[in-house]
Amino acid sequence: MYLSKLFIPITKDLPAEAKIKSHQLMLRTGMIKQSSAGIYSWLPLGFKVMKKIEKIVREEQNSVGAQEMLMPTIQSSEIWKESGRYDDYGEEMLRITDRQGREMLYGPTNEELITDVFRSSIKSYKSLPQILYHIQWKFRDEIRPRFGVMRCKEFYMKDAYSFDLSDEEAKKSYNKMFFSYLKTFNRLGLKAIPMSAETGPIGGDLSHEFIILADTGESKIYTDKKIFEINLKNYKFNDLSLKKMREDFTQIYTATDEKFDKDDFDKKVEKKNQVIAKGIEVGHIFYFSDKYSIPMNCMIDDKEGKKISVKMGSYGIGVSRLVAATIEANYNNDVMKWPKSISPFDVVIIPSISKNNKENLQKAEKIYKDLKKQNIDVLLDDVDENMSNKFKKHDLIGVPYQIIVGSKSEGSNLEFKELNLKSELLSLDNIKSKIKT
Amino acid sequence: MYLSKLFIPITKDLPAEAKIKSHQLMLRTGMIKQSSAGIYSWLPLGFKVMKKIEKIVREEQNSVGAQEMLMPTIQSSEIWKESGRYDDYGEEMLRITDRQGREMLYGPTNEELITDVFRSSIKSYKSLPQILYHIQWKFRDEIRPRFGVMRCKEFYMKDAYSFDLSDEEAKKSYNKMFFSYLKTFNRLGLKAIPMSAETGPIGGDLSHEFIILADTGESKIYTDKKIFEINLKNYKFNDLSLKKMREDFTQIYTATDEKFDKDDFDKKVEKKNQVIAKGIEVGHIFYFSDKYSIPMNCMIDDKEGKKISVKMGSYGIGVSRLVAATIEANYNNDVMKWPKSISPFDVVIIPSISKNNKENLQKAEKIYKDLKKQNIDVLLDDVDENMSNKFKKHDLIGVPYQIIVGSKSEGSNLEFKELNLKSELLSLDNIKSKIKT
Repeated sequence: MYLSKLFIPITKDLPAEAKIKSHQLMLRTGMIKQSSAGIYSWLPLGFKVMKKIEKIVREEQNSVGAQEMLMPTIQSSEIWKESGRYDDYGEEMLRITDRQGREMLYGPTNEELITDVFRSSIKSYKSLPQILYHIQWKFRDEIRPRFGVMRCKEFYMKDAYSFDLSDEEAKKSYNKMFFSYLKTFNRLGLKAIPMSAETGPIGGDLSHEFIILADTGESKIYTDKKIFEINLKNYKFNDLSLKKMREDFTQIYTATDEKFDKDDFDKKVEKKNQVIAKGIEVGHIFYFSDKYSIPMNCMIDDKEGKKISVKMGSYGIGVSRLVAATIEANYNNDVMKWPKSISPFDVVIIPSISKNNKENLQKAEKIYKDLKKQNIDVLLDDVDENMSNKFKKHDLIGVPYQIIVGSKSEGSNLEFKELNLKSELLSLDNIKSKIKT
Repeated sequence: MYLSKLFIPITKDLPAEAKIKSHQLMLRTGMIKQSSAGIYSWLPLGFKVMKKIEKIVREEQNSVGAQEMLMPTIQSSEIWKESGRYDDYGEEMLRITDRQGREMLYGPTNEELITDVFRSSIKSYKSLPQILYHIQWKFRDEIRPRFGVMRCKEFYMKDAYSFDLSDEEAKKSYNKMFFSYLKTFNRLGLKAIPMSAETGPIGGDLSHEFIILADTGESKIYTDKKIFEINLKNYKFNDLSLKKMREDFTQIYTATDEKFDKDDFDKKVEKKNQVIAKGIEVGHIFYFSDKYSIPMNCMIDDKEGKKISVKMGSYGIGVSRLVAATIEANYNNDVMKWPKSISPFDVVIIPSISKNNKENLQKAEKIYKDLKKQNIDVLLDDVDENMSNKFKKHDLIGVPYQIIVGSKSEGSNLEFKELNLKSELLSLDNIKSKIKT
């Protein structure tokens, strides 16, 4: 893609309404545009990043055997009355009356709807266990939407639902999702801490939040740095090993502000291992057994032909929120550096262009074509602008690798720079292998 | 995927509420489930097909230089008041009042919102032309939703918007989309006819519908069979060649019932070439110049620094509707055969299983693993059921290729069947190359 053709409305001004750095960056680099309070359009740059995050989330859901489907955004109030949550949900639920006077709503979450799908589809124990998920827009009518896509009204979320025969079996599904979540955040280059959590309006008695570390996080986190040393590769994908994995994580001290107790912290965590940091919630998983299946009569025949209620859990990841959270974790000292796995482009070519000399641009175009042929997703900055402005701009766009076509190139060697590091002279072949690894 | 694990609630009964064959098939094979009138969940089988269609639509949009982004589903009424369409749209628009009393709506289309994004982002002629698109859920509060996802309330649509400096330039964008649409439908294995059309509530003076042939189509079509002989490969991707392409298509006689004139038809189309068929609309494109840019003040500076209104067009493809339309075009004599490009699986393995003999199942599992390794997306029917039932079921699921593991296999040769054709004995290597080509 040529930068001059890319729909990327970059602004130089720091937007006054943006209070946190991810919101500022996303507006400045034209990743998003607000259309009304708490509701955003995703412009091409932001969209590309979100889609890459979505793809990783999807792959890690599929890899633990979850099946993708898609529920609609608009739901009938009937099923919410069945579960008893229609009145509980309050004003955050966007309630709608259709032309025939039916009470509808924009789904803030999908426990009711998936239970409805399940009860009309599955009748026998033979079809269990099942994990279904979808990645769909949700709506919460926040009274004070803020921080850009971090706390907005219309947001993109992956929510999975597990269905099992017994509480014991259900814990196995829970552990699979626990594993999938940690793998997902790893691939996004984020340090995630699973923390035991309150269940809130979803209900149940077992729940974990996944918090990633970022200086601007909203909640204060206390933990032991050992938690970052656990290697997921040491666990196999079977029930026993995944049980061990969850135990290994959850036996390590973690606490948020509300639960923090200094004496306890000092007793359980060696001074040199104590981590006090800030974090952002990016995922939340719940086990609530038959909280929905009983009132909604979601029953199956067990081996003896007896009707039993299905045991359920739900598992959410904020896909649109993760775009902002990744920025909070990676944008420092006026430089944003996207993790390779979700960068909007693999590499950017920055030629030094002047009115009288188009030689660098031509050279850049040649490199561009060469990289394209190898399926490298490359951005070419063909804008006629001085190099110092260009560098400032690319510090914000955040593509981690740059090929600079200017005075420093020597023979067939090119100036190559990884953001936050010094530039070096490398052959194009060496650059390709750097980008690809 | 093992069929016993797939979330695919197959029903044997012909659903009474379904009047057309695509709706019947989608319910019977568990592709969709209605959640309320005109609103559906997409279960894994249906979801996979829709995603494959979406991918082809996306690739063909990208290949003509359109850039993907994503607008929200919920819009403010303000921009619709600016364009003047808020009152015109009537009861099909799902109107919503949020908790702060603001008038919002669920977007039925996005001309207003994209114009709003564009006017605040692009100020100079240098950034034109641009084509932006998104693939997003839309809502039309149909008074009588029917025919399943063919005429439902919440539907998935690709809509693109072009922005140009002059009417003449805009026609070039229009031709690009025209080309992209025909390529898209070709890849879906559909015979599509572009027909000059009314512009309706979108407005403008140039418009084409894309109609695909299907016996159960809602509109009657009269055309010349020469229209199916035009080869898109004869055109190059440049303005002149695409102009020629549109002329070549539009000079051929096409008419719907309303415009049909028998004398005219007989005069313009040789008897032996006359095609009288039924069709389903799957795409619609519009050129409406400054219908939105003038009232919404979407202006840019031209070369002389003068403010001029941007010239716009819009281009829609019904992605969810295409799933049903493809079924209407391909489901005949109780056999559904998906085009390879969008089949939910590449191939299905059907072993003959009995309680006392699991040998065929084991053999099938070995083939399954082998095909998986080659990235072939394979379904294994491990359900304990007689072969005649299995074949009936797979006639509906519609995977075009079957490997039948039973009595007819000879040595290393396997029984291989393409739906609607006779089975043959082939080596696994030959089968693989058949599937892949």
